[in-house]
Amino acid sequence: MFRHTDYLQFDVKPEKPDPVYARKLQELIGGAYGEMTVTMQYLFQGWNCRMEGKYKDLIMDIATEEIGHVEMLATMVARLLEGAPATESTKAAGGDPVVAAVMGGMDPQQAIVAGGGAMPQDSNGVPWNGRYIVASGNLLADFRANAAAEAQGRLQTARLWNMTDDPGVKAMLKFNLARDTHHQNLWLAAIEELQADGLEGVVAPNALLDEEEQGNHAFDVWHLSDVEFSSAGGWADRLAPDVVHQMGFNANPEPLGNKASAPAPDPKLYATYDGAKGAPSSALGTEKGVVGKIKDALDPDEP
Amino acid sequence: MFRHTDYLQFDVKPEKPDPVYARKLQELIGGAYGEMTVTMQYLFQGWNCRMEGKYKDLIMDIATEEIGHVEMLATMVARLLEGAPATESTKAAGGDPVVAAVMGGMDPQQAIVAGGGAMPQDSNGVPWNGRYIVASGNLLADFRANAAAEAQGRLQTARLWNMTDDPGVKAMLKFNLARDTHHQNLWLAAIEELQADGLEGVVAPNALLDEEEQGNHAFDVWHLSDVEFSSAGGWADRLAPDVVHQMGFNANPEPLGNKASAPAPDPKLYATYDGAKGAPSSALGTEKGVVGKIKDALDPDEP
Amino acid sequence: MFRHTDYLQFDVKPEKPDPVYARKLQELIGGAYGEMTVTMQYLFQGWNCRMEGKYKDLIMDIATEEIGHVEMLATMVARLLEGAPATESTKAAGGDPVVAAVMGGMDPQQAIVAGGGAMPQDSNGVPWNGRYIVASGNLLADFRANAAAEAQGRLQTARLWNMTDDPGVKAMLKFNLARDTHHQNLWLAAIEELQADGLEGVVAPNALLDEEEQGNHAFDVWHLSDVEFSSAGGWADRLAPDVVHQMGFNANPEPLGNKASAPAPDPKLYATYDGAKGAPSSALGTEKGVVGKIKDALDPDEP
Amino acid sequence: MFRHTDYLQFDVKPEKPDPVYARKLQELIGGAYGEMTVTMQYLFQGWNCRMEGKYKDLIMDIATEEIGHVEMLATMVARLLEGAPATESTKAAGGDPVVAAVMGGMDPQQAIVAGGGAMPQDSNGVPWNGRYIVASGNLLADFRANAAAEAQGRLQTARLWNMTDDPGVKAMLKFNLARDTHHQNLWLAAIEELQADGLEGVVAPNALLDEEEQGNHAFDVWHLSDVEFSSAGGWADRLAPDVVHQMGFNANPEPLGNKASAPAPDPKLYATYDGAKGAPSSALGTEKGVVGKIKDALDPDEP
Amino acid sequence: MFRHTDYLQFDVKPEKPDPVYARKLQELIGGAYGEMTVTMQYLFQGWNCRMEGKYKDLIMDIATEEIGHVEMLATMVARLLEGAPATESTKAAGGDPVVAAVMGGMDPQQAIVAGGGAMPQDSNGVPWNGRYIVASGNLLADFRANAAAEAQGRLQTARLWNMTDDPGVKAMLKFNLARDTHHQNLWLAAIEELQADGLEGVVAPNALLDEEEQGNHAFDVWHLSDVEFSSAGGWADRLAPDVVHQMGFNANPEPLGNKASAPAPDPKLYATYDGAKGAPSSALGTEKGVVGKIKDALDPDEP
Amino acid sequence: MFRHTDYLQFDVKPEKPDPVYARKLQELIGGAYGEMTVTMQYLFQGWNCRMEGKYKDLIMDIATEEIGHVEMLATMVARLLEGAPATESTKAAGGDPVVAAVMGGMDPQQAIVAGGGAMPQDSNGVPWNGRYIVASGNLLADFRANAAAEAQGRLQTARLWNMTDDPGVKAMLKFNLARDTHHQNLWLAAIEELQADGLEGVVAPNALLDEEEQGNHAFDVWHLSDVEFSSAGGWADRLAPDVVHQMGFNANPEPLGNKASAPAPDPKLYATYDGAKGAPSSALGTEKGVVGKIKDALDPDEP
Repeated sequence: MFRHTDYLQFDVKPEKPDPVYARKLQELIGGAYGEMTVTMQYLFQGWNCRMEGKYKDLIMDIATEEIGHVEMLATMVARLLEGAPATESTKAAGGDPVVAAVMGGMDPQQAIVAGGGAMPQDSNGVPWNGRYIVASGNLLADFRANAAAEAQGRLQTARLWNMTDDPGVKAMLKFNLARDTHHQNLWLAAIEELQADGLEGVVAPNALLDEEEQGNHAFDVWHLSDVEFSSAGGWADRLAPDVVHQMGFNANPEPLGNKASAPAPDPKLYATYDGAKGAPSSALGTEKGVVGKIKDALDPDEP
Repeated sequence: MFRHTDYLQFDVKPEKPDPVYARKLQELIGGAYGEMTVTMQYLFQGWNCRMEGKYKDLIMDIATEEIGHVEMLATMVARLLEGAPATESTKAAGGDPVVAAVMGGMDPQQAIVAGGGAMPQDSNGVPWNGRYIVASGNLLADFRANAAAEAQGRLQTARLWNMTDDPGVKAMLKFNLARDTHHQNLWLAAIEELQADGLEGVVAPNALLDEEEQGNHAFDVWHLSDVEFSSAGGWADRLAPDVVHQMGFNANPEPLGNKASAPAPDPKLYATYDGAKGAPSSALGTEKGVVGKIKDALDPDEP
Repeated sequence: MFRHTDYLQFDVKPEKPDPVYARKLQELIGGAYGEMTVTMQYLFQGWNCRMEGKYKDLIMDIATEEIGHVEMLATMVARLLEGAPATESTKAAGGDPVVAAVMGGMDPQQAIVAGGGAMPQDSNGVPWNGRYIVASGNLLADFRANAAAEAQGRLQTARLWNMTDDPGVKAMLKFNLARDTHHQNLWLAAIEELQADGLEGVVAPNALLDEEEQGNHAFDVWHLSDVEFSSAGGWADRLAPDVVHQMGFNANPEPLGNKASAPAPDPKLYATYDGAKGAPSSALGTEKGVVGKIKDALDPDEP
Repeated sequence: MFRHTDYLQFDVKPEKPDPVYARKLQELIGGAYGEMTVTMQYLFQGWNCRMEGKYKDLIMDIATEEIGHVEMLATMVARLLEGAPATESTKAAGGDPVVAAVMGGMDPQQAIVAGGGAMPQDSNGVPWNGRYIVASGNLLADFRANAAAEAQGRLQTARLWNMTDDPGVKAMLKFNLARDTHHQNLWLAAIEELQADGLEGVVAPNALLDEEEQGNHAFDVWHLSDVEFSSAGGWADRLAPDVVHQMGFNANPEPLGNKASAPAPDPKLYATYDGAKGAPSSALGTEKGVVGKIKDALDPDEP
Repeated sequence: MFRHTDYLQFDVKPEKPDPVYARKLQELIGGAYGEMTVTMQYLFQGWNCRMEGKYKDLIMDIATEEIGHVEMLATMVARLLEGAPATESTKAAGGDPVVAAVMGGMDPQQAIVAGGGAMPQDSNGVPWNGRYIVASGNLLADFRANAAAEAQGRLQTARLWNMTDDPGVKAMLKFNLARDTHHQNLWLAAIEELQADGLEGVVAPNALLDEEEQGNHAFDVWHLSDVEFSSAGGWADRLAPDVVHQMGFNANPEPLGNKASAPAPDPKLYATYDGAKGAPSSALGTEKGVVGKIKDALDPDEP
Repeated sequence: MFRHTDYLQFDVKPEKPDPVYARKLQELIGGAYGEMTVTMQYLFQGWNCRMEGKYKDLIMDIATEEIGHVEMLATMVARLLEGAPATESTKAAGGDPVVAAVMGGMDPQQAIVAGGGAMPQDSNGVPWNGRYIVASGNLLADFRANAAAEAQGRLQTARLWNMTDDPGVKAMLKFNLARDTHHQNLWLAAIEELQADGLEGVVAPNALLDEEEQGNHAFDVWHLSDVEFSSAGGWADRLAPDVVHQMGFNANPEPLGNKASAPAPDPKLYATYDGAKGAPSSALGTEKGVVGKIKDALDPDEP
């Protein structure tokens, strides 16, 4: 269960409105690496966590913090849109090219749909969607995704910090930059702790690593581009970060498999076919099992 | 420019068809962490890379390898669908519950749309889309996303390895598991090398780190959940992975900002409003610049 | 079956082209509350209506009217785009900032994809999709959605009316405003009539209302925000609109449930897990039913 | 800012797992009318509300409550999936048709992607997206959308209540039914209060109603279907719910506009054209304004 | 403007319900090549057509026919769902494996969301969207897309015809097959007529063909795969269908361009960069035009 | 398996950057008819092709060529963005209206997300998705779709050719125009060859054509619009392109079916219903088959 206070985590006071920047900030709200993504990603990870204790609680702490970040950004967008020339006609704007340019650079839906507020979408107006998040139940895989998401989020925040000279906006973004720094550190530290606790290794998932995978294919770069520079990296000859595999370089890999070809088609599906592969074999021919046998016994003349 | 050989990277030989599993494999083709994602993610990262040399070439090597992985999986799906009961009627299937169950568990579009082949979509039939990938130009942020993607991809492959007992399918998946292990190691090694080369630090992006962000907010967990377990993690008191920040724990964080509130609305946008905040201030009032001034001078009676 | 006449429901005569406004009008065509939505929403409601007679016929009347509204708007967009600077180069536009601004404010796809016409998408270019509509079979729930859709549609039309000073565009929008007023009245009147006819109550769906729901949780506001203003509304102490429930206010709600926690995971799915919850219980353990029993009898050594 | 407690709003205790039902419950989490929708809809409405006080606080109260509903449902899904036959092979399932049917009826991504947990998507696996919500700034229009959303949500909950006989699941759904009843009553009561407070009328938006719209088109049904039943409704002859318009019936409406036709195309966009409409007129011909005039004066030989 | 009659274009009378088939039929309603697509594609083509007369009228005739096809299919789906085991519990279904299989094979949203009716989505439940259609204004390009859409639509209808043995369903599909045959013939005939009327050639668009394109690259297959079979086609040595180009075969194509490389990055966007390419050149450096010049003159000390 | 060379198929050298045009070019990368579409469409068609030999090899040749076209366009976008005013503030841009207009006309995500590079999306920022492609297994249907896609692609390229005067950009587009011409010719030639090889006829799919479809409905235009021009086309009276059907014109088509109406609803799904159609008949009543019979025999008192 959640509770809410009306007060914001940090000040949100633009010195003056800027409707073009209000569109750009949408990226931090509803973009693939915006605050809606980390909110939902951490909430679902927490709800799906299989161990009570420090990991789950950390996830829920940060998840709850992130809802408040969406709130800060949505409030900032509304304030940046105050007095925007949203209801000027094109003709009127034509008299002042800067106003015309601002109209062209705004998100039209912030006015037409939201009446001067933020939308759950990115800076191109594409709505946020649930495929942006991951919550796999495997903490190593998910914490790595979290560290990656915070890195992209901080990168976008830093770019947006350079796109304004409003001191109030910059102050809020400095706070966001700091939290993104901390969260990157947190997830990296949590990965180290998972490994120290013996719960996960370096490669996810841990369990099948040594025995089942084709070990001889787990160590070399397949060089499929035509310059030789990639062999110059340390990865061409070092012990891997998992401290298990020696890394190598395959300068001229050849295909290991046979020709790619699709099998004979079902004639009732009308694939173009010359018959050269014969008729398809049955998917379930020998697997009907006991039920089919009973049926055959009881009702022999049904096809 | 690309070239193609008809031979597959590795053998793709199911012992027998399995149309239900053919649906599940779609996750590895067109899911958020499937092979289409890593293909396109690495291609766009390579094309957008700003440094010639080992990093760009490594990216292009792996990107080119991944197109071939989509090819392997698409071929496997077609072979698993051979002889599927796709054109049986519900009535006919009703006589054999296993056939009926298989029909219900298949992806209907693999038959109706693709005629017995793979589709560029996930195991629920949702089409792959371009928002799944990231190619930011910042190699630290992107390599971290790559390591995360390979971890999720290997995790899903391992789960799918457990969902079949067909030795041919398992053999191909073992190859995929091995490549995913290697690719995780590669991106982790490349991150270390980026740092060793002095191109990036631990936190992305590097450049603003020490001076601009609100440093006092870059070190403590905001504890917003109601159990105290998250303070038990090392992250509550250690030197951060970036070896710059000391990490701490704020057990009872209070809002630092003022109340969240949206400003006075534009009356022509019809937000419900009692007038208590007065009229909105103008977004562009003092910023018209020289063009407006010239216009005013030349054409004073236009509004 | 449908028939078509080439004549428009109402005049569509802009005084002069305005390509920036042509982009904004896309919201009324393919936005979440645009005319494509009400067209498809009413068509599917009509086709899925379970009672012949006045309700179904009303739905089909308005559905058929709405196809013609899409036609009016698509025609208006094409006319607003006549002579647009769609094929000017950026360099040429650079010589006239207003032309440059107009180019930036246009929907590029109206030129590149549609050749100067409307697209089935909103003012940010996001395509219309089928999840925008609802046709549940329950007329109370659907008519309430219809009244809501017409309210949002009229609101957006009113906003757009303020964004132009072209008398021809304004005339068409006045017609649209009038129809949206009428349609709001229609759906509100139809809700009253449903209730008067005894087919539905105030709360949808009607049937389970008194007996099955947890009645003691159907009357009070859970106050989870930290200011006390919400208790000042009439809803904190009045007879509810359904004239069944007395409405109240719970100033300090406490959780009624136990701790949120996910169960023991399937080890083959590789969730990170310390084993503290033991092994998962089986989903289907006691439910195999007769078929399983027969199978066990006939084929005892299969697992 | 938000805070979280680990305790659930209400008990979530299924008597036994049911992985097929776990897929169906996704509709209440990430469907168009699921709990993610009302959570985000109310949050954005609250953040965009222009009046401090009872309305905004009510919105934030319910928004905060709804996050907890997503939490309840996500927890329920994880518990329903305990021990699901997610990692059985098709061959093994083939021996027990009920297991085979369960496998076919499950959401494969709950296992492959989420490792046995809920996903932010609906019962067909389509991800939740931001276009599902509305937050227009106009409280009448939005409260009507809220009442409609709660009606659809309660309807779907009632249907799902009939699809299980697990007493633990039914108990939780009864709680949800009760809250949905209350929320419907709340939004209907809040609409009445908005009108009583003089902030909005019956038709949204209020401001343009009497003067600008084409009043003569705001009162009659356009009868475009071919049976006469729709004239039998009260809406064909009564005072409208807005108590302003008299409602009527136009049994044989004729088009009021001229022929629909697109204008002469830009030849550089290659629409097929026989030239019969001449050349297009210029969109911006007479609107270049002062900047163009200055440019012409200073730089006369540029085109 | 449109009108509607309640009578269907053709009989829609399934002999008995079949809820599994009701899901499959969704492909013909809301799939990429379903009836919603051809309806909307032809409507937008007609509204955007630049010539009054036979072509536009033909488009509108078929568009109007297609709305009625959606109606037929939506009605068929509702009838196929009559009495479906939508509200059986999993436990109850567990007693009869065929019922369990049917439940797994149904579209859950047809019950939960639509109450037993069709949805605007495909057989995997993915909603129809506006990017499925094309209406470019160029009739050759569009009629070719129309012939392709009718071919895919007829192919899917033929596959679905094989998936049922219900005589009533088969009768309706035979009607649909016939219309799809006719429509393919129609669009192919219309293409011939466009060419005979001198409005378009064989290759779209006509206008730039001979003079502007790189003619020497318009005739040969670039052989980039490693088997030589593609040279065995007539296309390797014949006069092209446009009767202008001689077709040829380039057995070993080499890249004609220089190395792919991205330019020096903007340092404020934080791409990883070693500086080897220097600083970026300015996008607008020499293009500021007259406004910039005036500004410089009037306000020289602003940056 | 694929290989890559760093050299581009053709030169990609813009004379100078143009960030507004960089947005427009996105349509050719990630639009519905962009190069990502033809790449993926041809790859999946090739992988799903059922005949080894010339058709499959041709498909793979062109598929492999198209990956290189995405590469060319992505490189061009990066070069057009060099030095773009992406990190100028709105205030700074306000001093130069052309810069302001350019900012408004750019794709904000090319800077914020991609750091100055291309994205897998169209000119409105909508991500590419897998529903854009078709690979049905039927070569006639697919080649027709391919010819249509190349026609739309060439049309859009021609439009974009008119939107720039940069000689370097125009040179690359001329190459693209030439390849699109060739590919249109190729697919049209391949269709002729399919027919000459006796593999397919004119109408897809071939197999059911004469015997099963309702032949009497396969020849006439249903005239449902109200002008008579469509009867003036040759299609109203000629031998069809399939040289089987005589084409005709039905000037006044009447519905052939009965009234559209949905059946009696399941009461547990709460459709509004007056009972006039009685209770629904059971979907599976007589189809339970042997399993049900056995179950009834063994366990007679279970429902």
